[in-house]
Amino acid sequence: MPVGTAGTVKAVHFRDIRDDVQAQIVLGNTYHLYLRPGLKVLEEAGGLHKFNGWNRPILTDSGGYQVFSLSAQRKLTEEGAHFRSHIDGSKHLFTPENVMDIQRTIGADIMMAFDECTPWPCEYDYAKNSLELTHRWLDRCIAHFAETEPKYDYDQALFPIVQGSTFTDLRKKSAEFIASREAEGNAIGGLSVGEPAEMMYEMTDLVCRILPADKPRYLMGVGTPVNILEGIALGVDMFDCVMPTRNGRNGMLFTSEGIINIKNEKWKDDFSPVDPQGNSFVDTAYSRAFLRHLSISNEYLAPMIASQHNLAFYLWLVKTAREKILEGTFAAWKDQMIPKLDRRL
Amino acid sequence: MPVGTAGTVKAVHFRDIRDDVQAQIVLGNTYHLYLRPGLKVLEEAGGLHKFNGWNRPILTDSGGYQVFSLSAQRKLTEEGAHFRSHIDGSKHLFTPENVMDIQRTIGADIMMAFDECTPWPCEYDYAKNSLELTHRWLDRCIAHFAETEPKYDYDQALFPIVQGSTFTDLRKKSAEFIASREAEGNAIGGLSVGEPAEMMYEMTDLVCRILPADKPRYLMGVGTPVNILEGIALGVDMFDCVMPTRNGRNGMLFTSEGIINIKNEKWKDDFSPVDPQGNSFVDTAYSRAFLRHLSISNEYLAPMIASQHNLAFYLWLVKTAREKILEGTFAAWKDQMIPKLDRRL
Repeated sequence: MPVGTAGTVKAVHFRDIRDDVQAQIVLGNTYHLYLRPGLKVLEEAGGLHKFNGWNRPILTDSGGYQVFSLSAQRKLTEEGAHFRSHIDGSKHLFTPENVMDIQRTIGADIMMAFDECTPWPCEYDYAKNSLELTHRWLDRCIAHFAETEPKYDYDQALFPIVQGSTFTDLRKKSAEFIASREAEGNAIGGLSVGEPAEMMYEMTDLVCRILPADKPRYLMGVGTPVNILEGIALGVDMFDCVMPTRNGRNGMLFTSEGIINIKNEKWKDDFSPVDPQGNSFVDTAYSRAFLRHLSISNEYLAPMIASQHNLAFYLWLVKTAREKILEGTFAAWKDQMIPKLDRRL
Repeated sequence: MPVGTAGTVKAVHFRDIRDDVQAQIVLGNTYHLYLRPGLKVLEEAGGLHKFNGWNRPILTDSGGYQVFSLSAQRKLTEEGAHFRSHIDGSKHLFTPENVMDIQRTIGADIMMAFDECTPWPCEYDYAKNSLELTHRWLDRCIAHFAETEPKYDYDQALFPIVQGSTFTDLRKKSAEFIASREAEGNAIGGLSVGEPAEMMYEMTDLVCRILPADKPRYLMGVGTPVNILEGIALGVDMFDCVMPTRNGRNGMLFTSEGIINIKNEKWKDDFSPVDPQGNSFVDTAYSRAFLRHLSISNEYLAPMIASQHNLAFYLWLVKTAREKILEGTFAAWKDQMIPKLDRRL
């Protein structure tokens, strides 16, 4: 899922997200959308789809992660999370109940449960208490979700989130608790927050063995192309990450042959296409030398090209993974791709 | 002509400049391209068309205007203009001869003569001396242009530039001098630099009566939609201006019904299209409320939408003017458009 924090995938037109990148779903951030444009505007618009014109599915996170990473003076209580806006310092409270209401108003096709995403590293006792709070919050989310109706003319799903930091007993306990709620899909949170990749894979493996295989498993905030292939191998079905757009804005291009830092001197007179194997129009419409020039010159077109290329590459990667799984050749293909994806060109 | 200073029209893909905005020609700035990416890269690429992928005509200015508006420690002599780069402070010299060479290397379809663009207001004696220097430089440009060949496989034209500030006798003298050189097209420079619009129209009128009617007349750096219609009425055929893109990046939208400042509170809950009469895809793909949200949130998509809308509107305006001229209804149409174009919505 391309990340569309404030209702827009940064530097790419939705027309291109749909027709060129060929994304099936995008993510929006509840925290950002709640603060700006705000619920009044979103409700008057008829929800986020009507507001931004994206007519394919939208998933919204629950806002919990941003409250902890972006807001000022945040404070957690049993009731919820008190915080001040990073934009204007205004005071707000997120609770499991109002986060359901907010996502009803946004009109996300997939709503996420309100949780605490533990930092890493994290003390065992902190992780255990946090996990129990997240579980109590989940039941409040489920109850409030059941009591309320969609505001627009389509159904919404609610995905709960497994937490437990990098403690195997907590992860197991959380995955079992989450699975028992029989949601339409299940998410794995609290990973890709600084822990070693091997630890992330270990936790993902453990959790995927418990979460039902016939429902989508969503690994939140992951990751590099390698992380995504490893996640797929472990049974993950959905990912979101800012890397293709954020790293693209900084001049990093992911390709099937490796990683390009387009600001490097070496691309100065490389007039070959941005990515000869790429399947976005930007890959052949522009050369590496021209993109380097744009990037060095701080031109808008640089992040526009890099973001669209990276998103198209990520979508190609997961589409190809799906094809290889159906063909029964995923493992061999993955082993062949992994060393290439990480190398620096 | 959309302005593509550093070889890119800011915040719009060339695909969209061609297919959506439907521009026939874009402008590049010699000063910027000479400094970055530099002549070596441009020549290795095979010229600017190959470098940036724009395969319709390109006009480059002569660099004189930017030397005076952007560079540090500039100094004018008979030989040319000594200046320091605004990027790294390095020392450079533009002469009529090397500016021809530079534009040969860029591969512009239309090259501009090297001139001094006088500031406004300007003393009569300064304007007179400057004009005479510009004329001497023109003959050096013409001689060097005649002695040199295109570097790529297509012809290049050279347009001279009328100067003379806002002094009627100087403008008349300059226009007669320029016309006598029988170039393939002729430009009017030194206007739209702070003088009242009426003075700009008066000078344009005077000059257009002298420059040949059967060759394109190009009014440099102009202007607002009203300026453009008034210029056309006076006999101008070509314009370039940063307004559609620069003002677009600041949230100003030009439409056939007037001017919109999209940051205004009043658009907060206006879910109507950006421009119901517009003919760019962005005009109906996005709402005013969404564009306002993007603009307030400093999202990349805001300048992308506004720039593309404004360029498409400018191109619609000149295309329609051409149709009305052919129909013989231009004057009436212009009188009806002018009051609308300037009003604030």
